[in-house]
Amino acid sequence: MGKLILLRHGESVYNQQHLFTGWTDVELSDRGREEARKAGELLKEEGLMPEICFSSWLKRAIHTAQIALATMDWEQIDCLKDWRLNERHYGAWQQRNKEEVKAEVGEERFVAIRRGYDTPPPPLPDGDPRLPQNDPKFRLIDPALLPRSESLAMTRERVLLCYYEKIVPELVQGRTVLVSAHGNSLRALVMAIEGLSPEEVVKLEIPTGEPILYSFDGTMELMEKKDLSDR
Amino acid sequence: MGKLILLRHGESVYNQQHLFTGWTDVELSDRGREEARKAGELLKEEGLMPEICFSSWLKRAIHTAQIALATMDWEQIDCLKDWRLNERHYGAWQQRNKEEVKAEVGEERFVAIRRGYDTPPPPLPDGDPRLPQNDPKFRLIDPALLPRSESLAMTRERVLLCYYEKIVPELVQGRTVLVSAHGNSLRALVMAIEGLSPEEVVKLEIPTGEPILYSFDGTMELMEKKDLSDR
Repeated sequence: MGKLILLRHGESVYNQQHLFTGWTDVELSDRGREEARKAGELLKEEGLMPEICFSSWLKRAIHTAQIALATMDWEQIDCLKDWRLNERHYGAWQQRNKEEVKAEVGEERFVAIRRGYDTPPPPLPDGDPRLPQNDPKFRLIDPALLPRSESLAMTRERVLLCYYEKIVPELVQGRTVLVSAHGNSLRALVMAIEGLSPEEVVKLEIPTGEPILYSFDGTMELMEKKDLSDR
Repeated sequence: MGKLILLRHGESVYNQQHLFTGWTDVELSDRGREEARKAGELLKEEGLMPEICFSSWLKRAIHTAQIALATMDWEQIDCLKDWRLNERHYGAWQQRNKEEVKAEVGEERFVAIRRGYDTPPPPLPDGDPRLPQNDPKFRLIDPALLPRSESLAMTRERVLLCYYEKIVPELVQGRTVLVSAHGNSLRALVMAIEGLSPEEVVKLEIPTGEPILYSFDGTMELMEKKDLSDR
């Protein structure tokens, strides 16, 4: 039976400062690192030793996986990274203060973009240093494939391309797979796995540092869902 | 042109205590972590950004790669791990004090085993808790394939199986590959790459924290060797 463990990274230094993060590559805070350790302890207690790990290209997700696996004394597994697991791209709102943006655009538009399903924030303009193609990590990827801002619907599309290309083939072989990613890239994945509607996913919150376990049979039929929590 | 970067992990807590380490999975010391950071700085200065990383299953090599890549702000590459890159297995000498072992077996036998090419230390006996098969990480590997002690010649054999199976296919595609491993597993690899004789490899020392760069053409002909050092 294939087992998929979803782990949302904990607090980053931007969360502390109430800034929109998106693809900004910020570090975990001390509290975020502690959440990753707790997640590793929960997985170890459950005997859930993954055979392979996937994360986004963002260090807060990469480090969350590394800390959880180190806590489990289980660092020998391959750790693969895919930018399509990155957080939703927050466009021109990235690195801006959330309250400032809300005051500027008004509550209604703010909520539509932040919590709605298919409204992207304003895109990054040409020449903006925050454009992904300005980062040497993306030098081999056609800029046309890289976002300038994303709705949850747009995030879902590229997350699922990664999921069906790389993760599902592991699950159908019966492997246990750890995916360390972000609030919105994981919401997009949960939406697909649980068959949620856009209205349902809007209300969905993924907890930080508390792994979610999905078990599948060999035809990727969902058998069981379990939330791991120490509460 | 394929580029192979070999990186030997720095000081571990066992080095500090003058104990034989082998497959004992000990942490880097603070100095070892600093050596890994320096290695990352040297690679960054040279513009040597690897496209894929391999390490052994031992945390001192895994952490060395993680620290070097974090220093380079280049953590988005896949990090694959293979036990066949592990340090030489030191058999019944593992975790024992080097001076004590020397006093026990005599200088001549000590040097023959420690520095010779094909003399293994005494093997771990049946039931020894240090046997690799007692570690759940090896649960899917036939114990007959796992060593109870190794000479450098025996280490070379399994290192090269990994090298030709996983690393060479990356190099012939012209990729830049980082391999983070150990004094003896890297000596075995250098022996094969440079065509050294058993007599020559006995004198070979791989520096810690100072990457060695090999460049190959598309037929794996060695084009250039360069030692990276800040001295």
